[in-house]
Amino acid sequence: MNLILLEDRDFIRPDRVRLQDDRCRHITRVIRAKPGDTLFCGKKNAKMGTGQIVSMDRNTIDMQVCLDRDPPPPLPLTLVLALPRPKMLKRILQSLASLGVKEIFLINSRRVEKSFWASGVLSESDIQRHLFLGLSQSRDTLVPQVHLKRFFAPFAKEELPKLCRNKQRILAHPKAQTTCPVGINSNTVLVIGPEGGFIDLEVQTLVDQGFEPMTLGDRILRVETAVTALVSRLFT
Amino acid sequence: MNLILLEDRDFIRPDRVRLQDDRCRHITRVIRAKPGDTLFCGKKNAKMGTGQIVSMDRNTIDMQVCLDRDPPPPLPLTLVLALPRPKMLKRILQSLASLGVKEIFLINSRRVEKSFWASGVLSESDIQRHLFLGLSQSRDTLVPQVHLKRFFAPFAKEELPKLCRNKQRILAHPKAQTTCPVGINSNTVLVIGPEGGFIDLEVQTLVDQGFEPMTLGDRILRVETAVTALVSRLFT
Repeated sequence: MNLILLEDRDFIRPDRVRLQDDRCRHITRVIRAKPGDTLFCGKKNAKMGTGQIVSMDRNTIDMQVCLDRDPPPPLPLTLVLALPRPKMLKRILQSLASLGVKEIFLINSRRVEKSFWASGVLSESDIQRHLFLGLSQSRDTLVPQVHLKRFFAPFAKEELPKLCRNKQRILAHPKAQTTCPVGINSNTVLVIGPEGGFIDLEVQTLVDQGFEPMTLGDRILRVETAVTALVSRLFT
Repeated sequence: MNLILLEDRDFIRPDRVRLQDDRCRHITRVIRAKPGDTLFCGKKNAKMGTGQIVSMDRNTIDMQVCLDRDPPPPLPLTLVLALPRPKMLKRILQSLASLGVKEIFLINSRRVEKSFWASGVLSESDIQRHLFLGLSQSRDTLVPQVHLKRFFAPFAKEELPKLCRNKQRILAHPKAQTTCPVGINSNTVLVIGPEGGFIDLEVQTLVDQGFEPMTLGDRILRVETAVTALVSRLFT
């Protein structure tokens, strides 16, 4: 935890917070901070800065905070990802939050196992928890938006065209001929399929929406590796 | 498993293999292949191609193989990584193998927990297993070399200078001023520290060996995310 992420309810005065949950335990046991120590802090969807511990006991930490800095700029990316298996989704949400991705659509595809949609990881509270871990890791405060889209066709044909107006459109596709560009650094919608890839009909639907299939090379990467590799290469 | 990785002992004739282990179960239960089906295959540290199932029962699969293609080219990278926590190491070994990294040094650092060195993941068999998973994922046959270096100073001062002769030298360091380059695609030694970073003395030792500290930006990434992000960006 490189940043203590604060919420409205933590503030007992405009410049003072009281922590009594996991963050408190983390500060005491992992960071091993002491009264007087200064920690990186940031308020959810707001500024970041420092917090100085003014008092602490086993279950409560009070900090004097000074939040005067903007969080790092978001990536100009909308990521559309076929729902990965739940265990991998946790890590992907953390990675995406830490990389600065702010718009995430988890969508269905023929090769997404139906059971994945019933996973507890998709609960609002679990999603938020994994996003917070990523933000705390990378020192950011802007919480990504995660949208669940249970049906491929209505999403791809009706919502996606609106989302990608005036944006570069990339479909990560291991079988593509074109190699994925480097450092495009402009507004982009990136679509990444499931393990095993989108079926041909889904690829065609996306191509019809102006998406260009692109590859990272001969190697077929796990979704979680591919997500990081693609984001890191597109935005430099 | 996008490629069935074959070993010498699997060959019952120069063009025929017999599988009786996990790969057999995977082919039967996950891939659900049938006699006559053709699968991607490759021989460890040798060529790759296809295997056609000529007979199969519950515990044994015989395949007629034709291995006539070279594996994808290795990355011109030597990766030196402070030993990560065991659970993360498993995934990192898989990712590195799938990305095409062939030389991996796992080294000590002041901020590496001593207990990590006692982990079973560092056994030869566990390391090989995770590397094989990565190679099978990405369709590659060249097994990465993993070297364990239990002491920082002798490695950094005596072995490292020989390893990095005539190579670009990059130290991934969140506090650096210079941004990590994109697409250098030349012989490189990349050093990545532990969670929390190398201590100043270690950074200085590496700088003395000609390593330039470089950053991926303001965001502090988990080691496993940083490894993929760096490799993907350096080699395009």
